[in-house]
Amino acid sequence: MRKILVIGAGKSTAVLIKYFQDKSKSENLHITIGDISIDNAKELAADHPNTLAIKLDVFDKNSRENAIKNADIVVSMLPARFHIEVAKDCLRLEKSMVTASYVSKEMQELDDQVKKKGLVFMNEIGVDPGIDHMSAMQVIDRIRNQGGKVILFESFTGGLVAPESDTNLWNYKFTWNPRNVVVAGQGSAAEFLQEGTYKYIPYHKLFRRTEFLEVEEYGRFEAYANRNSLKYQSIYGLDDILTLYRGTIRRVGFSKAWNIFVQLGMTADDYTLTNSEHMSYRDFTNSFLAYSPTDSVELKLRHYLKIDQDDIIWDKLLELDIFNTDKKIGIPNATPAQALQKILMDKWTLDDGDKDMIVMYHKFGYEINGERKQIDATMVSIGEDQKYTAMAKTVGLPVAMATLRILNNEITSTGVQIPIQEEIYTPILKELEEYGIIFKEKECEYLGYNPDGAIG
Amino acid sequence: MRKILVIGAGKSTAVLIKYFQDKSKSENLHITIGDISIDNAKELAADHPNTLAIKLDVFDKNSRENAIKNADIVVSMLPARFHIEVAKDCLRLEKSMVTASYVSKEMQELDDQVKKKGLVFMNEIGVDPGIDHMSAMQVIDRIRNQGGKVILFESFTGGLVAPESDTNLWNYKFTWNPRNVVVAGQGSAAEFLQEGTYKYIPYHKLFRRTEFLEVEEYGRFEAYANRNSLKYQSIYGLDDILTLYRGTIRRVGFSKAWNIFVQLGMTADDYTLTNSEHMSYRDFTNSFLAYSPTDSVELKLRHYLKIDQDDIIWDKLLELDIFNTDKKIGIPNATPAQALQKILMDKWTLDDGDKDMIVMYHKFGYEINGERKQIDATMVSIGEDQKYTAMAKTVGLPVAMATLRILNNEITSTGVQIPIQEEIYTPILKELEEYGIIFKEKECEYLGYNPDGAIG
Repeated sequence: MRKILVIGAGKSTAVLIKYFQDKSKSENLHITIGDISIDNAKELAADHPNTLAIKLDVFDKNSRENAIKNADIVVSMLPARFHIEVAKDCLRLEKSMVTASYVSKEMQELDDQVKKKGLVFMNEIGVDPGIDHMSAMQVIDRIRNQGGKVILFESFTGGLVAPESDTNLWNYKFTWNPRNVVVAGQGSAAEFLQEGTYKYIPYHKLFRRTEFLEVEEYGRFEAYANRNSLKYQSIYGLDDILTLYRGTIRRVGFSKAWNIFVQLGMTADDYTLTNSEHMSYRDFTNSFLAYSPTDSVELKLRHYLKIDQDDIIWDKLLELDIFNTDKKIGIPNATPAQALQKILMDKWTLDDGDKDMIVMYHKFGYEINGERKQIDATMVSIGEDQKYTAMAKTVGLPVAMATLRILNNEITSTGVQIPIQEEIYTPILKELEEYGIIFKEKECEYLGYNPDGAIG
Repeated sequence: MRKILVIGAGKSTAVLIKYFQDKSKSENLHITIGDISIDNAKELAADHPNTLAIKLDVFDKNSRENAIKNADIVVSMLPARFHIEVAKDCLRLEKSMVTASYVSKEMQELDDQVKKKGLVFMNEIGVDPGIDHMSAMQVIDRIRNQGGKVILFESFTGGLVAPESDTNLWNYKFTWNPRNVVVAGQGSAAEFLQEGTYKYIPYHKLFRRTEFLEVEEYGRFEAYANRNSLKYQSIYGLDDILTLYRGTIRRVGFSKAWNIFVQLGMTADDYTLTNSEHMSYRDFTNSFLAYSPTDSVELKLRHYLKIDQDDIIWDKLLELDIFNTDKKIGIPNATPAQALQKILMDKWTLDDGDKDMIVMYHKFGYEINGERKQIDATMVSIGEDQKYTAMAKTVGLPVAMATLRILNNEITSTGVQIPIQEEIYTPILKELEEYGIIFKEKECEYLGYNPDGAIG
C-alpha cells in the first residue's frame, strides 16, 4: 500500500479524501487523516477501510515527525502559515508534499534542497491559486506554440452562492472565510497594466471601478481588481504584455453596495471601536456619521453618501439590519471590520441545503500572423451540498490529482513547484473534466482594454 | 554668566536665539549654538558678543557631552527623534532641558529619574503642541475655578500663508515641512467625541467633513479633524466631556480640492510607482485613471470624480499643472505622495518676501449655575519675513521663555513636563502678548455640536 498523509481535516478536505478513498483499491492507497481534532479526522475518514484517523498537533514535533515518517507523501491542508513546519520535516525525512497555498518566502528558500533530494513540493494547486494557473498556462502555451504572442491576459475568479440558493438582494453569501471578504482589497493600491500603462486604484475606489463579465447560461457578473495583478507576469512569461489584470468576481451590483461600507469606514481593521461590545447595529452605523440632535441615522447616511430615495442599495442596507437598535455587536474591542463581519454573518451564512458556486473567467488577447485575436475561457462549478461544495471540489480535486501523480512518478520536475508546466496541467485539467470542472472557450473580437468598443 | 546651549540651528530657531540675545545683558546670558553645520550656527549667532557658534554632531558622544557639560540648561531644537540622546546626557550631567516636541515614550520613561535629580525636562512648548496647551488650559482652569464644568472643547490650528502673500487659488503655501502636509491624516480613522458619542472618519472622507470657523478681521477658514482628538482628554482633566475635537485649519475650499488627490490615490505613501523618474506630471495623473484609446486625461478625471464644467476645483488643478506633458517627476522609485509633493513644491513654495501666518481657534462649552455657555478664543500671528516667520515666533518664543524661567527657578514642577500648569502658562501667555501673540476671547451662544443651530 502507498501511504498518503493528509494533515488538516478542514471543510475543504472532504472531496480530497473521497477522491483518495474512491481510488484506494485501484491505486493501492492507504490514507491517514491527521487533525488536532480526532473527531474531525474521524468524520472525514467515515469508517472507510483504507483510512485511518489520528490526532495530529502540528506543533508537537514528535507526533508530526512520526506521522510524516510513516507516509509516502504528505498533503498539508493546514492554514498557510503552518506549512513550513511540515515542509522542513518532509525535507529531512525525504517525502514529497502538496499544498493549495501560495508559496511563502520560507517555502521558496527550500527549493535547492528539495531539488537535491529529488522531491516535489507542489503548491498553489487548489482553485485560486491552482486551476487559474493551469487553465491560463494551457491557453498561453497553445497560443505560443502556434506562433502567437500574448498581449492581453485578464483573469477573474469568484466564490459565490449558486443561482438556486441565491436568495438575498446582495446575491452573495459567505462560502469561504468571511473575514477575507470583509477586508478584501485593503493595503496599498491595486496595481495592473492596461495597454502598456501601469495603473493604480486606491482601496476606497476599488469597488467603483468594476467591469462586467458575461458567462453563458449564468448571466452577468462584475469584477473588481485584485491588489497585485502583476505577481505572475514573469512566471507566466508575459514580460512584454500590454494588459494584465486579475480580479474578483461578484454578482452585478454587489461592489457598488459594498462601497457604502468602504466609504463609511466600516471595513477598517487597524483600530478598535470604543465600547464595541455594547454597541447596537444602529450605534455602529451612527459612529461613522456626524452627530445631529434631530436627524435620523437613516437620513444622515442617505445624505452623506448621496443614496437616492429609489436606489436599490438602500434596500440592501435595510436587509442587513444596520439600523437595528436591539441587535448588539457583542464583541469586546472589535475593529470596525470585525463588527461588520458580525452583522453580515447574520444574513450571509449559508442555510442548510444551500449550494455554492465557483466562477472563473480568463481573457487572452494575442497577435498571430499580423492579426489580433481573443479567446475567452469560462468555468463554472456548482457545489452538491455543504460538504461537497464547489470550493471543496475545485480546491481538493487538483490537490488530490497532483498527489497521486507525484506518487506515480508522473510529475518529474523536482523542487518547490507551482502547476504551470505542461506535464502537470494537461493531465490534471483533463481529469478535472470528468468531475464537471470544464473550461468553455470561445473566440472573440479583440478589443484590447476598451470595454465599450469605442476606438476611433 | 548663565550658559544656554541650543542644539540644532534649523529655521525655527532664529526667533528663539534673538530672544536670548536681546536679554543677554539684562539676564546675564551666554548662548552657545551647536549644529552639525557650523555655518548654520554662525549665521544664527550673527556675531553677537554673547553668542558662540560651535559644530555639534549629536551622534558624536564626546562633542555632545562636552557641550552639555559646559551649559547650565539645554534647548534641543533637533528633529524629535534625536532628543532622547540629548535627554540622557542631560540627566547624567544634571542639566534641565527644553524641547518643542511631543513627549516620546522613551522621554516619558525618564520622568522618575528627572524628578529625583530635581530637574525640569519641559516638552511640547512650541505652538502646536505648546501654545495650544497653554491657551486651552488657561480657559479650562478659569471655568473650573468659577465652578463651571467644561462639556465641549474644540481646538484648531493651522500654519498658512499670510493674507498679503496669498496669491494662489488654493490660498495655501508650504510654511513648514511639505511632506507632513501631503501625508496629513493618513493611518487609522480620525476619532473624536460629539455630544457623548465616539465618531470615526476614515482618511478618504476626512477632507469632506470639514467645518467652518470665522476669525474676526481674517474671515472664514475651514478645519478637518486630526487623527487623535482624544489624546489629551485625561491630561486636561476632561474625562466626562461630551464633545472633544481637534482639527487643522485651512482656507475655505482647500480641503474639497485636496480631496481630489486623496480620491485619486495620489497621497499614498505605502508603495512606489513603476518608472516614476521619467513620468511626466500628466503620466502621473493618468496612472490613477482607467486606460482609454480616445479620451483625454482631463475628461477622464472630470468624469471619474464628477467635476463640473464650472467647478473652481478644476482651476486649482490646472494651476498645479498636473496635466503637463513636459515636466517630469524626476525621482526614482517615488511613492505617489513623493511625486505629488514634487508637483506641489513647484507652486506652493514661499517666494522671497512672502509671509506666513499661524491661526489658532478654541471653543469652550461649559455649564455653570444650570446654564450652558461658550467662549471662543482666537489667535492669529503673522510672520515678519522668511527668517522671523510666524512659525519661528510661535514655536521659538515659548521655548525661550520657558528656558529662561527654568534657569530663574520660576518653574518649580520637576520631571518630564508639558505646559499645562498654571505656574507655567500664566506668565508665558502674558509675556507672549508683548510679542503680539494674543488670544481674543468672546462669549458665544452654546450650540453644542450643532453647527447649523437647528435644534428643534
